[in-house]
Amino acid sequence: MEKSESAKIDIAETGRERKGKAPLLGGRSGPAERAKAGGYKRGIAIFDLILRVSAAAAALGATVSMGTAEQTLPFFTQFFQFQASYDDLPTFSFFVIGMAIVCAYLALSIPFSIVCIARPHAVAPRLLLIIFDTLALTLATSASAAAAAMVYLAHQGNSNANWLAICQQFTDFCQKTSGSVIAGFTTVALLIFLVVLSAMALRKHY
Amino acid sequence: MEKSESAKIDIAETGRERKGKAPLLGGRSGPAERAKAGGYKRGIAIFDLILRVSAAAAALGATVSMGTAEQTLPFFTQFFQFQASYDDLPTFSFFVIGMAIVCAYLALSIPFSIVCIARPHAVAPRLLLIIFDTLALTLATSASAAAAAMVYLAHQGNSNANWLAICQQFTDFCQKTSGSVIAGFTTVALLIFLVVLSAMALRKHY
Repeated sequence: MEKSESAKIDIAETGRERKGKAPLLGGRSGPAERAKAGGYKRGIAIFDLILRVSAAAAALGATVSMGTAEQTLPFFTQFFQFQASYDDLPTFSFFVIGMAIVCAYLALSIPFSIVCIARPHAVAPRLLLIIFDTLALTLATSASAAAAAMVYLAHQGNSNANWLAICQQFTDFCQKTSGSVIAGFTTVALLIFLVVLSAMALRKHY
Repeated sequence: MEKSESAKIDIAETGRERKGKAPLLGGRSGPAERAKAGGYKRGIAIFDLILRVSAAAAALGATVSMGTAEQTLPFFTQFFQFQASYDDLPTFSFFVIGMAIVCAYLALSIPFSIVCIARPHAVAPRLLLIIFDTLALTLATSASAAAAAMVYLAHQGNSNANWLAICQQFTDFCQKTSGSVIAGFTTVALLIFLVVLSAMALRKHY
């Protein structure tokens, strides 16, 4: 009697294991589940690398486009030539410096992203990336938003504060700075995706 | 000979287990480790709640301070009275709307933060919080940075674009808007901490 019961239990357990439905106690993950989660995390890490390269390219474009924005008007007086360049407005200088820092950070973070592809279960590089991505996101957003506020003012002016629009004269300059701001916000959108992706890769797979 | 070797191995294993250094295969976590990780995560969740309430208070302060910023100068001409209010500058209106949205989101997210305290191992509310916190961070940063650019311009003016500083006349208005911008950046700093904390709580404990 004793022996037959034991044999029965053995068979029942084998049947469960064959179906792959062995009850997991206390969130233990078996090697098979771990391999599956590894594949999912590796997919996220590859997508992370692609987004990171795109964001670095967008940040580089924003920096170069704003850094080369200048225009000299074809008419001049005896004492003064009308000229606009990005460093006439401190906000645009901040934009160039901020986006250059973000671009440099994104380029330097590519090796860490590659480490995450090679070792999808490593937590430390992933946590490092999400923290610095958040800081880069804040810097890129503040640079882009401040530059956008100035571009809007240059286009529309403000009659209440008696600030006149300068884009009627400096059309090329305004177009180029507007383009830079769009590139800046593209970087911001890509960085948001990067943070969300890292959060998804960090989550547990029980 | 065979028997003595087996006995030796048994003793060695027991010694390891007594020291609490039993080798864990495949990242399996026992109930004791899980409970320890739960305490760590609960601590993070409580800190998250405190930061969240502070951030909501800072956002509310920024909104109200900017929304009530107006000043009427004591002198006037026959046709015009000099008056400044936040909605004279579209950027300040954006700041008020953006910070109000962030404040409302933070207030509404408090129940989710409490769920994370009650169930420290739950992944879904934590992931939801980190995604929307990132979006709130972006909104708060862009509103604050744009308003900061305008406050800077109101204080300093810009001789290249022929925009005059208005803060020599509207001193009280400028002080109040500057205070709002500082409250806005306080919200941004608290939101950065919230995102980093959520990332730390999401990470695995093998």
